Amino acid sequence: MRNYFSSDFKLGILGGGQLGKMMLYETRKFDIHTHVLDPSPEAPCRISCNYFEQGDLMDYDTVINFGRKVDVLTFEIEGVNTDALRQLEKEGIKTWPSADTLDKIQNKAIQKKFYKEKDIPTAEFEIFDNKEELLIAVEKGTLSLPFVWKSATGGYDGKGVAVIKTREDLDQITKGECIAESLVPFKNELAVIVARNPSGEIRTYPVVEMEFHPTANQVEYVICPARIEEKVAENARKLAEKVSEAFNHVGLLAVEMFQTENDEILVNEVAPRPHNSGHYSIEASFTNQFEQQVRAILDLPLGNTESKVGGIMVNLVGDKDYEGEVVYENIEKILRMDGVTPHIYGKKLTRPFRKMGHVTIVNKDLAEARRVAEEVKNSIKVISK
Amino acid sequence: MRNYFSSDFKLGILGGGQLGKMMLYETRKFDIHTHVLDPSPEAPCRISCNYFEQGDLMDYDTVINFGRKVDVLTFEIEGVNTDALRQLEKEGIKTWPSADTLDKIQNKAIQKKFYKEKDIPTAEFEIFDNKEELLIAVEKGTLSLPFVWKSATGGYDGKGVAVIKTREDLDQITKGECIAESLVPFKNELAVIVARNPSGEIRTYPVVEMEFHPTANQVEYVICPARIEEKVAENARKLAEKVSEAFNHVGLLAVEMFQTENDEILVNEVAPRPHNSGHYSIEASFTNQFEQQVRAILDLPLGNTESKVGGIMVNLVGDKDYEGEVVYENIEKILRMDGVTPHIYGKKLTRPFRKMGHVTIVNKDLAEARRVAEEVKNSIKVISK
Repeated sequence: MRNYFSSDFKLGILGGGQLGKMMLYETRKFDIHTHVLDPSPEAPCRISCNYFEQGDLMDYDTVINFGRKVDVLTFEIEGVNTDALRQLEKEGIKTWPSADTLDKIQNKAIQKKFYKEKDIPTAEFEIFDNKEELLIAVEKGTLSLPFVWKSATGGYDGKGVAVIKTREDLDQITKGECIAESLVPFKNELAVIVARNPSGEIRTYPVVEMEFHPTANQVEYVICPARIEEKVAENARKLAEKVSEAFNHVGLLAVEMFQTENDEILVNEVAPRPHNSGHYSIEASFTNQFEQQVRAILDLPLGNTESKVGGIMVNLVGDKDYEGEVVYENIEKILRMDGVTPHIYGKKLTRPFRKMGHVTIVNKDLAEARRVAEEVKNSIKVISK
Repeated sequence: MRNYFSSDFKLGILGGGQLGKMMLYETRKFDIHTHVLDPSPEAPCRISCNYFEQGDLMDYDTVINFGRKVDVLTFEIEGVNTDALRQLEKEGIKTWPSADTLDKIQNKAIQKKFYKEKDIPTAEFEIFDNKEELLIAVEKGTLSLPFVWKSATGGYDGKGVAVIKTREDLDQITKGECIAESLVPFKNELAVIVARNPSGEIRTYPVVEMEFHPTANQVEYVICPARIEEKVAENARKLAEKVSEAFNHVGLLAVEMFQTENDEILVNEVAPRPHNSGHYSIEASFTNQFEQQVRAILDLPLGNTESKVGGIMVNLVGDKDYEGEVVYENIEKILRMDGVTPHIYGKKLTRPFRKMGHVTIVNKDLAEARRVAEEVKNSIKVISK
C-alpha cells in the first residue's frame, strides 16, 4: 500500500473553507502532507496546510496546475472546474469524488433525472429550460401551485430554492434552468452520511434529524440519533447506501431526505463531501466525518460510524442586525455548560446569517443534550464590535 | 472579559513539539492567534500556529523578545528560561504556569523538599550536592542499597533515573546534585491530571493506570479509568488536587503517583503541562487535556473531565533496530480495528525508542479496549525505509 503517513505523498484539497479546516485537523493527526487551493487569501485553511495557493476553483488552468502537484485530489466545495478534474483523472491523478459524480450532482435537474433512472424515491418534479417555460406551464395550468422551485445550478445555503404558493412568489424565480418539485408534506427532514472507499467498502452514519424552529422555517438543531422509529432509521440508512452505490461514489456523501407522513423516505438532495449535518461527529462519533473522508479517499479501512454519546449541533450564524468585526457574545457562558464545544471558523467579519461557526453539545442522555442545546441557542450571539 | 476568539489576542507557546501540536488543534478550533518558539526548524508546531520563531528556549533574550510579542505565555516543555519568564511577569505578560511553580518543579530536590513542607506524602529521600557525597554516604553505610537515584535536574523520558541495587549500578550515576529515594514496593503506578485556572476553579481527570510489560520494566498501556477500588481513586484525585493547590498552580498539572501495597498514595513527581498520561482524553473525554489547558491558562470556565468511553493509550516509539526515514508498518491493519486512532507526530526520522506518536483505543467496554490495545501493540511497528 502507498505510505501516506509522514511520507512524501501529497493530498490536494480544492477549497479552503471551514470544511477543509476541519479536515486538516485529521491530516495533521496522521501527518499527511496537504496542498490547498482557495480564492481567498484569508481562507480558514491557510495555516495548517503544508502548501497554500490562492486561485480560482472554477478556472481550468489554475485547477490543472494545482492538481498536477499532488497525488490525490479532493474538494470541500462543489463549485470546482470538473473539466479540469476529468483531465487530471486522465493524467493518472486520483480525484475523489470523481468528476463524473460531481457533474451529476452540480446540476439539480440531472441529479433528479438520475434518481428516476435508478429507482431512488424522490419528490415528483418537472424540468424547465428557463423561467419563461415555467411561467407558460403555470399559465396553461399544466403546472399548478403550490410547488417548490429549485434553480438547476448555483443553489447554496437556501439560495436558489423557494416555495411558490402564490403568483407573487413567482417574481423571485431566477431566469435559468430549473425544476418544479411537488410539495411533499413531511414529518421529518433527515440526513445520512455515507462513506465509501475505492475498494467498495461502505459505511453509513446514524440518521440525524433536523429540528426546525416552530415558527421561522429554519433548522435550529441537528440531532443524532434522530428521534424516529428504528425501522424508519434502517430504511433511511439502506436508501442512503443505495444512493452512494448508484453514484459509484468515493468519499463522503451526505444524503438529505424527507420522512413523509406515511413514513416513506424520499431523497431530497445530496452533497459529495463532509456536511454540516455531520459536524456533531467530531465530538460524538468513534470516527468523525473528516477523518472518515480522509480514510475513504485514500482507500484506507473505514472507521466505526457509531456514536459514543448523543450529539446535537447548533449553527453559529451572524446576527441579522450586525455587520463588521465579529464578537462572540456570551461564549464564556456556554463554555460553562456541560459537554459544549464551540467551533469558531475564523472569519474575521460577520454579516447577517453568515455561517461563522457551530456548537456541538454531547451527553450520554440525548434529552439532556437537547435541553443544553436550547440554553446554548438562547445564550450565544454572533455580533460585531 | 478579554475576547480571545477571532480577535487580536495572542497566545505564546514555548516549545513546538507534539504537545504543542496537539494544543494547536484546540487554538485553531477556537480561532485563537498563536506564536510558537522552538529550536528546530522542523518542529511539529511549525505549521498551524499563526507565527513561528526558531530559537533557544533556554536563552534569556530569545525568550524575552518572543514573550513581549504576546498577551499570555505558556510552555509545552519544562526546559525554558525561568528568569525570562519572571521578567515577563514583571512586565505584565501573564505567564502560566508561573516561573515560581516551574522553578520548584524543574529541580527534583526542591520538588521533594516542597512535598515535605506541604505534608504531601512522597517516598523517603535524601539529597546530595554531588555524586561524591552520595558515594561517601554509601561507604559510611548511612545510605543503604537498594535505592532509586534521581538527578536533580535534566531527567527526562527515563534519563536521569536509575534503581541502584548493587555497587556496580553506582557507575551509571552522573556527577551533579541528586536525590536517593527509598524503593517503595507498589501495586500500581497511577496518574491524575489536575486543571486549575487563575480564578481558582479546579477539576481533576479520572485516575489513569500505567500497565507495565510483565518482564521488561516499561509502560505498555495507559488505561482510563484505572482498574482500582473507587476509594483509592477518590484518594488519588483528592491528593492530586492538594498538590495543585500547594503549588498554587495555573494550567494542567500531571501528578504521577504510587499506590503502595497497603493502598497508601505517594506522589512520585509532577509535570506542569499536558502529559502523555492524558493523551487518551482526545478521544475518550468530554474535554480533552489540550482544550482544558487552553481554558485554564486563559481563565475560561473549565470543561467536564469525565469520560465518554473507556480509553487506552499505547505509545509509538521507534523500533530498537531501526534508524532513518520513518515508516509505520501495519498502520492500515490497526485502522481496521474498532475505535483505534493513531496520532503521528510528524518526526521524519526514527531512532531506537524515539517517541514518534501514540495510538488511542476507545470502547464502551474497557476490557474490550484492552484486548484491542494488545492487538495494536502486536501489529504496528515503527521502522525505517
